[in-house]
Amino acid sequence: MKTEIKKILEDVAAGALTVDEAVLKLKLEPFVDLGYAKADLHRAVRQGVPEVIYGAGKTPAQIEGIVRAMRSRGQETVLVTRLSAEAAGELRGLEAFRYYPEARIGVIGTTPEPDGIGAVVVATGGTSDVPVAEEAAVTAECLGNRVIRLYDVGVAGLHRLLSHAEDIMSASVIIAVAGMEGALAGVIGGLADCPVVAVPTSVGYGASFGGLSALLSMLNSCASGVSVVNIDNGFGAGYFASMINHMEAKK
Amino acid sequence: MKTEIKKILEDVAAGALTVDEAVLKLKLEPFVDLGYAKADLHRAVRQGVPEVIYGAGKTPAQIEGIVRAMRSRGQETVLVTRLSAEAAGELRGLEAFRYYPEARIGVIGTTPEPDGIGAVVVATGGTSDVPVAEEAAVTAECLGNRVIRLYDVGVAGLHRLLSHAEDIMSASVIIAVAGMEGALAGVIGGLADCPVVAVPTSVGYGASFGGLSALLSMLNSCASGVSVVNIDNGFGAGYFASMINHMEAKK
Amino acid sequence: MKTEIKKILEDVAAGALTVDEAVLKLKLEPFVDLGYAKADLHRAVRQGVPEVIYGAGKTPAQIEGIVRAMRSRGQETVLVTRLSAEAAGELRGLEAFRYYPEARIGVIGTTPEPDGIGAVVVATGGTSDVPVAEEAAVTAECLGNRVIRLYDVGVAGLHRLLSHAEDIMSASVIIAVAGMEGALAGVIGGLADCPVVAVPTSVGYGASFGGLSALLSMLNSCASGVSVVNIDNGFGAGYFASMINHMEAKK
Amino acid sequence: MKTEIKKILEDVAAGALTVDEAVLKLKLEPFVDLGYAKADLHRAVRQGVPEVIYGAGKTPAQIEGIVRAMRSRGQETVLVTRLSAEAAGELRGLEAFRYYPEARIGVIGTTPEPDGIGAVVVATGGTSDVPVAEEAAVTAECLGNRVIRLYDVGVAGLHRLLSHAEDIMSASVIIAVAGMEGALAGVIGGLADCPVVAVPTSVGYGASFGGLSALLSMLNSCASGVSVVNIDNGFGAGYFASMINHMEAKK
Amino acid sequence: MKTEIKKILEDVAAGALTVDEAVLKLKLEPFVDLGYAKADLHRAVRQGVPEVIYGAGKTPAQIEGIVRAMRSRGQETVLVTRLSAEAAGELRGLEAFRYYPEARIGVIGTTPEPDGIGAVVVATGGTSDVPVAEEAAVTAECLGNRVIRLYDVGVAGLHRLLSHAEDIMSASVIIAVAGMEGALAGVIGGLADCPVVAVPTSVGYGASFGGLSALLSMLNSCASGVSVVNIDNGFGAGYFASMINHMEAKK
Amino acid sequence: MKTEIKKILEDVAAGALTVDEAVLKLKLEPFVDLGYAKADLHRAVRQGVPEVIYGAGKTPAQIEGIVRAMRSRGQETVLVTRLSAEAAGELRGLEAFRYYPEARIGVIGTTPEPDGIGAVVVATGGTSDVPVAEEAAVTAECLGNRVIRLYDVGVAGLHRLLSHAEDIMSASVIIAVAGMEGALAGVIGGLADCPVVAVPTSVGYGASFGGLSALLSMLNSCASGVSVVNIDNGFGAGYFASMINHMEAKK
Amino acid sequence: MKTEIKKILEDVAAGALTVDEAVLKLKLEPFVDLGYAKADLHRAVRQGVPEVIYGAGKTPAQIEGIVRAMRSRGQETVLVTRLSAEAAGELRGLEAFRYYPEARIGVIGTTPEPDGIGAVVVATGGTSDVPVAEEAAVTAECLGNRVIRLYDVGVAGLHRLLSHAEDIMSASVIIAVAGMEGALAGVIGGLADCPVVAVPTSVGYGASFGGLSALLSMLNSCASGVSVVNIDNGFGAGYFASMINHMEAKK
Amino acid sequence: MKTEIKKILEDVAAGALTVDEAVLKLKLEPFVDLGYAKADLHRAVRQGVPEVIYGAGKTPAQIEGIVRAMRSRGQETVLVTRLSAEAAGELRGLEAFRYYPEARIGVIGTTPEPDGIGAVVVATGGTSDVPVAEEAAVTAECLGNRVIRLYDVGVAGLHRLLSHAEDIMSASVIIAVAGMEGALAGVIGGLADCPVVAVPTSVGYGASFGGLSALLSMLNSCASGVSVVNIDNGFGAGYFASMINHMEAKK
Repeated sequence: MKTEIKKILEDVAAGALTVDEAVLKLKLEPFVDLGYAKADLHRAVRQGVPEVIYGAGKTPAQIEGIVRAMRSRGQETVLVTRLSAEAAGELRGLEAFRYYPEARIGVIGTTPEPDGIGAVVVATGGTSDVPVAEEAAVTAECLGNRVIRLYDVGVAGLHRLLSHAEDIMSASVIIAVAGMEGALAGVIGGLADCPVVAVPTSVGYGASFGGLSALLSMLNSCASGVSVVNIDNGFGAGYFASMINHMEAKK
Repeated sequence: MKTEIKKILEDVAAGALTVDEAVLKLKLEPFVDLGYAKADLHRAVRQGVPEVIYGAGKTPAQIEGIVRAMRSRGQETVLVTRLSAEAAGELRGLEAFRYYPEARIGVIGTTPEPDGIGAVVVATGGTSDVPVAEEAAVTAECLGNRVIRLYDVGVAGLHRLLSHAEDIMSASVIIAVAGMEGALAGVIGGLADCPVVAVPTSVGYGASFGGLSALLSMLNSCASGVSVVNIDNGFGAGYFASMINHMEAKK
Repeated sequence: MKTEIKKILEDVAAGALTVDEAVLKLKLEPFVDLGYAKADLHRAVRQGVPEVIYGAGKTPAQIEGIVRAMRSRGQETVLVTRLSAEAAGELRGLEAFRYYPEARIGVIGTTPEPDGIGAVVVATGGTSDVPVAEEAAVTAECLGNRVIRLYDVGVAGLHRLLSHAEDIMSASVIIAVAGMEGALAGVIGGLADCPVVAVPTSVGYGASFGGLSALLSMLNSCASGVSVVNIDNGFGAGYFASMINHMEAKK
Repeated sequence: MKTEIKKILEDVAAGALTVDEAVLKLKLEPFVDLGYAKADLHRAVRQGVPEVIYGAGKTPAQIEGIVRAMRSRGQETVLVTRLSAEAAGELRGLEAFRYYPEARIGVIGTTPEPDGIGAVVVATGGTSDVPVAEEAAVTAECLGNRVIRLYDVGVAGLHRLLSHAEDIMSASVIIAVAGMEGALAGVIGGLADCPVVAVPTSVGYGASFGGLSALLSMLNSCASGVSVVNIDNGFGAGYFASMINHMEAKK
Repeated sequence: MKTEIKKILEDVAAGALTVDEAVLKLKLEPFVDLGYAKADLHRAVRQGVPEVIYGAGKTPAQIEGIVRAMRSRGQETVLVTRLSAEAAGELRGLEAFRYYPEARIGVIGTTPEPDGIGAVVVATGGTSDVPVAEEAAVTAECLGNRVIRLYDVGVAGLHRLLSHAEDIMSASVIIAVAGMEGALAGVIGGLADCPVVAVPTSVGYGASFGGLSALLSMLNSCASGVSVVNIDNGFGAGYFASMINHMEAKK
Repeated sequence: MKTEIKKILEDVAAGALTVDEAVLKLKLEPFVDLGYAKADLHRAVRQGVPEVIYGAGKTPAQIEGIVRAMRSRGQETVLVTRLSAEAAGELRGLEAFRYYPEARIGVIGTTPEPDGIGAVVVATGGTSDVPVAEEAAVTAECLGNRVIRLYDVGVAGLHRLLSHAEDIMSASVIIAVAGMEGALAGVIGGLADCPVVAVPTSVGYGASFGGLSALLSMLNSCASGVSVVNIDNGFGAGYFASMINHMEAKK
Repeated sequence: MKTEIKKILEDVAAGALTVDEAVLKLKLEPFVDLGYAKADLHRAVRQGVPEVIYGAGKTPAQIEGIVRAMRSRGQETVLVTRLSAEAAGELRGLEAFRYYPEARIGVIGTTPEPDGIGAVVVATGGTSDVPVAEEAAVTAECLGNRVIRLYDVGVAGLHRLLSHAEDIMSASVIIAVAGMEGALAGVIGGLADCPVVAVPTSVGYGASFGGLSALLSMLNSCASGVSVVNIDNGFGAGYFASMINHMEAKK
Repeated sequence: MKTEIKKILEDVAAGALTVDEAVLKLKLEPFVDLGYAKADLHRAVRQGVPEVIYGAGKTPAQIEGIVRAMRSRGQETVLVTRLSAEAAGELRGLEAFRYYPEARIGVIGTTPEPDGIGAVVVATGGTSDVPVAEEAAVTAECLGNRVIRLYDVGVAGLHRLLSHAEDIMSASVIIAVAGMEGALAGVIGGLADCPVVAVPTSVGYGASFGGLSALLSMLNSCASGVSVVNIDNGFGAGYFASMINHMEAKK
């Protein structure tokens, strides 16, 4: 940003830019204003990742409009999260569109080759947590990560988790997805020596209070190296894990 | 109760009791009314256990009054829970009084020999949970149980817990005491094949919300065979565990 | 577990097992990995009970897959809890399948003869609590317990409860199921001299807040000998009660 | 009120009052403005009861000022609730002042003879609930009610409550004071055929959450004829009970 | 109760009753056990009111069964609350059945003549609170009270409330029904010199949190003489108000 | 009000009004009582704004009745908020009726020319917040304000917000509408030097808890000059903003 | 801001500024960095008000440092809120320092003459709410507003409020301060035709839950024209009210 | 772990180890059992970091015991978090002990040279958040990270944050520490292209509810790349950030 400003000022000093042009340029919006949304265009550059559209609460037409605006300006890959099967059906006309029904993610464009430090392990406490885990896994894959899935390894049957100790010990980053008691994150956090991203899920009933129980449990994890995202936020966990798994590429 | 009623009626039918005497007897209160409290006297008979006084919110003088009333009517052993060190100091004059400072329990009378089915294991997630655990352990001991203490075996260091697998596998009943994430109960519940009584503690800070986090986590335990008592209720857990550990004696 | 490890090591020492075979054996998973679930197979041995499948959030096909995997490996009886009538309809093809609609439990295999210490009493505060109570009762029956049902004996009409005093006094363990104010557990806890497992239900409206009111009330029970499971967790209560009712068989 | 307005208007019509005098009169404040407080003077008339000062958050000087203002304008009796022992010490100079330390109530003036329909029964679940109960009892006595105290009759020992069945059956109105599980209100509500005013108390620990548990339990009481006041609001219950106990005097 | 016991004992003493008959009699249940419910039969006697069935969570067949059992044993009037229009349709065959759709109450039997001390005023904050108010009003009418309805008199338009000051001042007891801010109860409590029964409703959105806002507001009412029932509990308020309005008849 | 009273009294003094007429007049209700509602008629005068009907929980027939009563008594413009598309369809027969589907507002009568101090800016964090924002915007427009819409300018893409810095700096009052983290209000509050009215929305999932997250965040805003209305209360924000934007017209 | 940027660019174009100087200038921080705090200096200009320091959690030395930095750069008046009497004692050496103990505000510099549109009315429900009200009142006075105080006018004694109807009707903006039920805001909102800023206070006990009850009540106010600030945030209300009261000066 | 097991088995196979020795070895505890705590010894190896002791709830003597046990077994550096100044005073005798009072951290042993990928930026919303930030910063420094502190850059004064844009853009990982509204995390998350670890603090009052407001806000952050730790958990954030900042060293 600083360099951009400096460049503009140098152009002004050099007479290559009038003052009014400079003011305009400094205010130039790095997004297209579609009225109902302002589609970010420079994010791939600014944050080094494909652009993502949060699909919930948007009509298929709105989503399509945003996708087209992005693609027409050179965005390689676009993810649409929280995309219902019905809405996906209406987007099928988009070029290079594919839909992951369990993850409820639509992808437009190519999936990059894995280029992270290592593998991202996605583990779930139970079978019902799989949709959230898939949101995390597909997100991580679309962001260039190799993903290992360990589903239904909840702490009530510790042997199921321990039988995968090698995957856990060798992971670059682990996403622990669990509802109900949410103990999975802490147990994995104690076993692993890599960062653990915990995702509480709303799976459960009664005193799980829509994921509150798992959320609090994860926030209070006694293991070091655990951080937490919102309830059911598989996308956020996948995105965050990918950032960690691409750290070495940064410098 | 039924037999008592029948006995009274038979006495009436036999003329051994007048109607008014019978009415009186049926209403005879199995407690001494001390004004500020109604000291139960028949509980040892009715529930097969020493009498227990909840010490919080009672003055040493009130506690002493209740103890004396009970003892004078033949109660062998009396427990006083939630008894501060200061209050304990004032009760030192009572015959056969001893005080467990960490458990904050005062005992008047003899501790019975262990006569349960097996051992009661009391496990804690951390060092800070020990006072609650001691309340459970001392309670269980006073109720005639052999107690094995496994302290600081939280799930963040699973090897510490697993190194005691034999104690866990052979226990008659296990009391799992933990604050923060409260995952200990679920992990032990998955390992053990005996009932697990979970005690959430108010140990922690921030989003532990005074024990709420551990409480919800334990209630949502995915392991079968886990039930929960109130936050910090070591006494309740020790009492409940003792009941289970004396099941075979019942019939 | 210890004995298993020792056995393997002895075989290695005796040359009956190569090192690699031993490593493999130590890691041998006591479950079948179905992708979406890891079906426990050794549980009947490890915990002495039929295997249980939590049906909520699983498709009938997934449930059937798990059941078949278990049965093909010798599991005598399988319970499926939280099974909707629709899903049950699709499972009707399974051998020896029967469905308890009020309890929403499907059972595959034989129900064992009652072999517990005594009777498990299941009491409810009202008529609306019956489905949860039936989940507890059917679970307990499938685990080999004689069950006595006392429905609609809430404390607002104490005479209804007291008229069953004999059942309460003679029970081996009591499951108290109540929504709304949840006072049933405490009152029964004061009457009975056996363990009481309290099940709050989500029955109610307004300030019952989905069972929170009953849950808190039960956790705060002033009677000793009461512990609590999750809201609406009839299965957990039935399972826990069965454990208690089979204590004498353990040693 | 209407009659007052009509009287003023008639005086205006009759020329006994100028318009400006009438406007003034219509606005005449039935209280003294002390700056920090507006001391109600007409309440004894308007609501038929002694005036009450909520002592918490007021300095002894402020309280004394309000009392003097009221007394100087003819108020017979004044109650000061939530009055600490220290503050009471500073008010000792007031004429006819007496202090009830357990109830934390100061009274200035005479206590009326009981003139209600019948007796107000004040029952508590435990010994720790007594201060709140005393606030209710002393309030009711100062408002002209005969009070019967039944303390420590919690539902965990039902025989203690039932031994007072006659008091409960014959009460005009019952105040049920309980913390923890708060079941007392519902049980009494089921036994009695008079209105029950339930007072949750903040007595307890852990999941009693400062009285929330008892409050929710009482609001969800399954017995008809129970209503609830704020946590620890002994005064409100005593006042409300007195209103009910004086209903026949009203017409 | 006491007199009943005495009578039985006298019969035993007189030889008119054998001991076994007496035991039986003492245990004789004052209700019919229908399996799914225990229909109270003596309540009209014991509590002086028509019997009430809480319709929610009961099938029309169950309700009909309970009604028939009651009626066949002499119960004059039966109320069924929380009765949906559909269920009411199925009960239309019952003799003397009528349905109040807004109150969602079905009544079987005659409505008694008003015989209370005075009028019960039912006031609501808004139009949306009317269904809860009607539940209270119809209940009160069925219990023999004259009812005055003041609907949509919320405090945001104080003139609407004040224009009915005469009704408020002359009421025997007032039921204040309000959602959202719930201020109606406190304002009426300050105006009236009779007991006010406050009913919070779940009407509202956002931070009304299903009636929690109104509930807390009402519990914290600064006016004396206000007590509260559960959210949306129109029946409870009507029942409680009727008790108060019939106080003079009691002695 | 005072002047009205004085006028009435002068008329009485002058004999132009009898006492009874005066009493009547003083009680004259400034609303029409429709049974189910009391339609305010003098509000346009008293509060200087069109009359507003809260449409939720009212039938189209009730709404129409209220509208007609108001219009027949001279009310120029009537707003109906929370009006579903279906209900709007049934009101189409009303003269000068139009419906804003996204805002869910129906308007009967003319929209006034903007006559406020300046512009009301309505900003949203995301696309999903637009319906609430439109409720605020349409309300403000109907109350005579010029409205500038800045949608989808959430703080996660600060450049989108900053590109509209001029609108923000020049606004008369800003309505900040956001769900999820609700940070928009604080950031705008720090940028702007005009009052900011914050509207939390229920947009979000998981730990947004139906808008609670945004609500708390906005209440805790560190920027001065921010106040908050209820979750999703676009109308309230628009109304409040209009009041501020018309301040200079007041004197 | 825009004009500043343009000015810098023009200077660059004119050669009056080198590019590096311009970069520097664009980044020039409008605050002094004191390490522990960044003292804003341009706020008086940017937001048109005296600078404010939030005193809680800052040492007197830190506060003094910030004050001196501001004053040395020309800031006329500085407010320190949440300033304890002890801390105020240590600041007494500052020039032109004065302390308002009830409001817990320290002021350095002159208080401006009132120059707002009209008067700001500050009303409280009770005497205990006065400290919060004083924080609002002193803040408003320091920001150039005439303040009218109406203390202890809670809705439980409506006549106390109505006797000040003229103040309420003529106010420019009203700050309604109340704890407990918080109904004051809604009632005033219904009476007044100016904006009402509601301040919930933490005054109360039991189910007031530290101000939550008043907060929810105020957010749910049925009166239009009410917005809410944080619990006990008297400063925020005074600041916001002042903004509204200075609207006409803006253009 | 696997390799360790294999090694043991090979030794058994080779006769270098008897079966009993092997069993013993497999169970050998990698910690010293001090009774009150089980001091981990292998963690430096297992997790690649200095050992950490959570000081809260431990006596200085207990802490010293654990430190000595660790040091005597070769642990280079030990951190003691949540260490009060008083407790630190008693530990001063330990070799190479130093105390960071603001961070409340004691360190025994050497601080390593920074060897991470880049810099860890620690930013706070206000001055009161500094203690939590220092806990994070000192932790990160002790784990071998270069730390840049940006304190008091809350979003209410966006220019203070933006003036440090370069630090933010160039960070390897950012720790965002904020109480009250907690918006800092989301705004930084939108600006930065590195992982952001958010730490809610309990700083605030009223509706901040002990950090709940900031916690919820951060969990709901609309920016990608944000995860959250427990309220006030500066240590956890520093530890987690260090893990991320050392990712490239891992492979």
